[in-house]
Amino acid sequence: MTPLHVVILAAGQGSRMKSSLPKVLHRLAGKPMLHHVIDTARQLGASGIHGVIGHGADQVRQITPAEDLTWALQEQQLGTGHAVAQALPGLPDEAKVLILYGDVPLTKAETLKALVSKVSDHSLALLTVNLEVPDGYGRILRDDSGKVCAIVEQKDATEAQRLIREVNTGILAVSARHLKDWLPQLSNRNAQGEYYLTDIIAMASEQGVDIAIAQPENEYEVQGVNNRLQLAELERWFQRQEANRLMTAGATLADPARIDVRGELSVGQDVLIDVNVVFEGEVSLADGVSVGPGCVIRDSHIATGTRIEAHSLIEGSEVGPGASIGPFARLRPGTRLAANTKVGNFVETKKADVGEGSKINHLSYVGDALLGRNVNVGAGTITCNYDGVNKSRTVIGDDVFVGSNTSLVAPVTVASGSTIGAGSTITRDVAESELAVARGRQRNISGWERPKKK
Amino acid sequence: MTPLHVVILAAGQGSRMKSSLPKVLHRLAGKPMLHHVIDTARQLGASGIHGVIGHGADQVRQITPAEDLTWALQEQQLGTGHAVAQALPGLPDEAKVLILYGDVPLTKAETLKALVSKVSDHSLALLTVNLEVPDGYGRILRDDSGKVCAIVEQKDATEAQRLIREVNTGILAVSARHLKDWLPQLSNRNAQGEYYLTDIIAMASEQGVDIAIAQPENEYEVQGVNNRLQLAELERWFQRQEANRLMTAGATLADPARIDVRGELSVGQDVLIDVNVVFEGEVSLADGVSVGPGCVIRDSHIATGTRIEAHSLIEGSEVGPGASIGPFARLRPGTRLAANTKVGNFVETKKADVGEGSKINHLSYVGDALLGRNVNVGAGTITCNYDGVNKSRTVIGDDVFVGSNTSLVAPVTVASGSTIGAGSTITRDVAESELAVARGRQRNISGWERPKKK
Amino acid sequence: MTPLHVVILAAGQGSRMKSSLPKVLHRLAGKPMLHHVIDTARQLGASGIHGVIGHGADQVRQITPAEDLTWALQEQQLGTGHAVAQALPGLPDEAKVLILYGDVPLTKAETLKALVSKVSDHSLALLTVNLEVPDGYGRILRDDSGKVCAIVEQKDATEAQRLIREVNTGILAVSARHLKDWLPQLSNRNAQGEYYLTDIIAMASEQGVDIAIAQPENEYEVQGVNNRLQLAELERWFQRQEANRLMTAGATLADPARIDVRGELSVGQDVLIDVNVVFEGEVSLADGVSVGPGCVIRDSHIATGTRIEAHSLIEGSEVGPGASIGPFARLRPGTRLAANTKVGNFVETKKADVGEGSKINHLSYVGDALLGRNVNVGAGTITCNYDGVNKSRTVIGDDVFVGSNTSLVAPVTVASGSTIGAGSTITRDVAESELAVARGRQRNISGWERPKKK
Repeated sequence: MTPLHVVILAAGQGSRMKSSLPKVLHRLAGKPMLHHVIDTARQLGASGIHGVIGHGADQVRQITPAEDLTWALQEQQLGTGHAVAQALPGLPDEAKVLILYGDVPLTKAETLKALVSKVSDHSLALLTVNLEVPDGYGRILRDDSGKVCAIVEQKDATEAQRLIREVNTGILAVSARHLKDWLPQLSNRNAQGEYYLTDIIAMASEQGVDIAIAQPENEYEVQGVNNRLQLAELERWFQRQEANRLMTAGATLADPARIDVRGELSVGQDVLIDVNVVFEGEVSLADGVSVGPGCVIRDSHIATGTRIEAHSLIEGSEVGPGASIGPFARLRPGTRLAANTKVGNFVETKKADVGEGSKINHLSYVGDALLGRNVNVGAGTITCNYDGVNKSRTVIGDDVFVGSNTSLVAPVTVASGSTIGAGSTITRDVAESELAVARGRQRNISGWERPKKK
Repeated sequence: MTPLHVVILAAGQGSRMKSSLPKVLHRLAGKPMLHHVIDTARQLGASGIHGVIGHGADQVRQITPAEDLTWALQEQQLGTGHAVAQALPGLPDEAKVLILYGDVPLTKAETLKALVSKVSDHSLALLTVNLEVPDGYGRILRDDSGKVCAIVEQKDATEAQRLIREVNTGILAVSARHLKDWLPQLSNRNAQGEYYLTDIIAMASEQGVDIAIAQPENEYEVQGVNNRLQLAELERWFQRQEANRLMTAGATLADPARIDVRGELSVGQDVLIDVNVVFEGEVSLADGVSVGPGCVIRDSHIATGTRIEAHSLIEGSEVGPGASIGPFARLRPGTRLAANTKVGNFVETKKADVGEGSKINHLSYVGDALLGRNVNVGAGTITCNYDGVNKSRTVIGDDVFVGSNTSLVAPVTVASGSTIGAGSTITRDVAESELAVARGRQRNISGWERPKKK
Repeated sequence: MTPLHVVILAAGQGSRMKSSLPKVLHRLAGKPMLHHVIDTARQLGASGIHGVIGHGADQVRQITPAEDLTWALQEQQLGTGHAVAQALPGLPDEAKVLILYGDVPLTKAETLKALVSKVSDHSLALLTVNLEVPDGYGRILRDDSGKVCAIVEQKDATEAQRLIREVNTGILAVSARHLKDWLPQLSNRNAQGEYYLTDIIAMASEQGVDIAIAQPENEYEVQGVNNRLQLAELERWFQRQEANRLMTAGATLADPARIDVRGELSVGQDVLIDVNVVFEGEVSLADGVSVGPGCVIRDSHIATGTRIEAHSLIEGSEVGPGASIGPFARLRPGTRLAANTKVGNFVETKKADVGEGSKINHLSYVGDALLGRNVNVGAGTITCNYDGVNKSRTVIGDDVFVGSNTSLVAPVTVASGSTIGAGSTITRDVAESELAVARGRQRNISGWERPKKK
């Protein structure tokens, strides 16, 4: 099979982004635009992916995992044709070459597959799109037989040509041989003094090379990003697609316009997602999970039937089946909750392994801790895991009852079946079935006079 | 008056919902779709409501309060005509019969009243709607005089007929006599092998029975739900209607597209509702109440002039006038706050009766508690109401000052005018005007060496 | 230069608002509609601003800072012409007069400048707008030469005239001399028995005074508010404009439809604002600041590179560079955080001055406090700043380690380098490098029997 090589143009500055970041590193759905394009190239099974970089080249290289990438440096930005030329040395003669853009992030792989399939030794394939308002784009001219014969730029178009709604997207596929033949012939004798890739269309036409056309399903697939308004517009389209995918998969969304998925979210059947939930990284929600309004879930797995109440934040955690989380719970990385656990309001957990049926219902901090089964952690309990220098662990056995407002000064072990009296500061281990109390004796002083207003 | 009987078809599986729940039980605005339709039937003053169930019949019966309902079981789904036939035995001969659908949840009672009013011994009434894009629906054919004479299905329609934008909604009203005459004559000799209710239109026409038409104000009224995308679309329309109702009634909404009402919300005058507030169950907000962004309020009543700050969750609570709640407050069921009370950030209350002017401003849990007037509960106060087995009560009198980080081990009574020193664990009652302190003596040890990095 | 005087009509009741507040005081983007109009008048450099008030005049006066305003009282609402007449005595003969409306809040200054520039001794200038649906508005009639000759009201318009989409906005500018000439000639012989300002157009036309036209860029600029639905519609348009402004300035918005700016928000470069953030009052976000979902920020300044996590509320605070705030943090007025500080989840601060590198990570209340550098405040720490009557201060030196669940009973000073043991109630000062502990001794009691179910 003819190998496919993808060239991604990513050298532009993007001054209208008003940013210290190169344009192609701006994130869409949590991922740099360039990475969207690279991921699409990978989906196409490309034998080679060539990134042409220039502005902020170091930043781009640094943030982009590049095992299967080749970088070409375009030191001066002399036009798209010049950019592609920088990648030429890396393109085998027998390859098909697909030209993509690091700031056109959302072209679908299927669209590009259809495009690439139309390239041959006798044909170039161009991606075009029909726009309601084609202003500013190069119009596609067709001859009487309906074959594409040229592209005319807005400024050169006649009034009749300006009515044409089919426009050039800049995305095209062509044989490496043609490319190597044509690129050196490009001229920069134009108003901008740039070498335009588009000019190869005219060369193809002149040489009798067929110009095949493919089109995307949706014009957002070929929309480029030049400023943050356009970035936001694409973000919203992407999110709406994600919402539709989730609903089709069996999730009920309270409002498809108020969900954000920045990463990979997989959902089981009969999952309910309330308004304004944000997902980041890799998240899975098993069958019957419900997520309340305002939650943020990042890199976590939630097992069957678990209920996450409003305004809970979960990161790097595994939550067992039938658990009840929140509202106002915060699970930090390393939290592992077994089945039927409860973590309630104003509770923070971190590196906490919590056994089946255990409860931490209110106003607590449980970090660097191992809890057995059926532990009841009272309100206001704090594992004092940090002495200012080192972190230590708290180990709590099965069936322990920790009274409210308890401080557990780690390292400390509270054995199974034991009880901690409310308001205690526990600094020594507690043995099985012991009661530990560490608090002052109560004194009631009569005739106490309240302070007076100063 | 001729009695009205309503037959609701609710036997379908809804496989495109990808759900273990029968389709008609999926919730819209917090209520199963079928219940919306039943409630509408009740608004029409129906003498009988007949639910035809099949898939998930047990689940439907179980979740549906059914004093005034009759269930008919359609064991095999052989078409809409067959479904209605299952309900025939329960329909008195002299009745008007209205056919509704459990997955068409939002038809307005007024629309249906207009429809039903057009039924007589000599006329059947059909609900039609004009669609921008009528594709897929049965088109309404009219004769030269403008009278409806037939419905032609999409697949049988001529090109000219396909241009007709008036389509059949499936909702119709007809005398029981006609229905009993026509239904047994339906045939299943069609591609699907089903008995179609729609075929009675042709029978009516043949027999010279008039076909009267009514139309809904909005096409969402007759939109059916076959998948979760359609469910979400109807949810949004419903919520927008609710938003308009609230604004017309005198509430200012920061954003009508970001409010969710799932139940009955009543508002007084000059109520302010900020973005992303969710209301569930029965909620009332009296004059001048303001609700901050991100709040969730369920089954609660909020009195005049109370201010609820951002991200507060209120459930099963009564909040007196002039109170100040939140931000980040959580009132759980059984909370009753008197006038001019304050419940502040990171505070949870449950079964708590709080007297006038009392304040629980920060980081506290107050449950199973009775507080008098002008009590000041310091930050970090916890009512230890649970000993792992039983729950007990805390009683606090008027004008009590509870110092910060206090644990109140219930059952315990703290009498009026008394004071609790900060950091105390109170296990014995405190008498009037006493000062109770229960904490360790402070020792300052000089020359302390901090732990070193391990 | 001819002085400009602006007359703002603000006397109406606005009964469709269903409010105890005069209509012009209803807030749009946090500011009364009337104040938007006054601010616009100020931008025009008006020599005089004349508010014509009637319903709720006292409320309007009270809430409106009025150094440069003149109030005219319209005791009876007898029409717009009558309203302007109340302001006549304050208008110098040589002035240009611009008539605005307190319930048309969003007309842009540039639009009005263009309008005013067209007024002369021989011309009146009228603001018109072309509407898709002009129903209900007075249509602009033009003669064969295209000059405006009259306004015809909806009810008096012929069928042809009703097709005219250019309508009268009511906003106009005219010389004071003309106004003083024409207003006394107005008649109230019409269906409503009112004096209409619009009638001066006919007078102008009769007297050969030119009627110049200006138009706004967007029809929302001239939309009036008669009910809360219209108010919400304008609010959304305003907010969308703000979102666009921020994105153009260099901020990335996760969703331009889910941000609310009620006041003055200034942003640096590469600011990230996640969904559902609300800004109130004067807020600045320096370069590289990120704000998580669900935050509310009011009257605060956030320095470079600070990261504010989800659901944090910040009011009246100064946050130094490189700080980390939240999630679930609440900074109340008087909080000043130095560089690289951290305030974490379920932490409340108030009048707190926190030194560089200090951390308050969890579940604490720090109020009326001065903290040095590199202080570590353990979870559950509370500054007991209030004894029920007076507030006192807590002072903590550099490099102090405060153990968890500590109560600091103010006034108290904890000197640099000292350590507080977990669970302590500190009532006396702690000297440099001392360890202070104040808690009960731990007793472990074996063979403890748990309470039994009652």
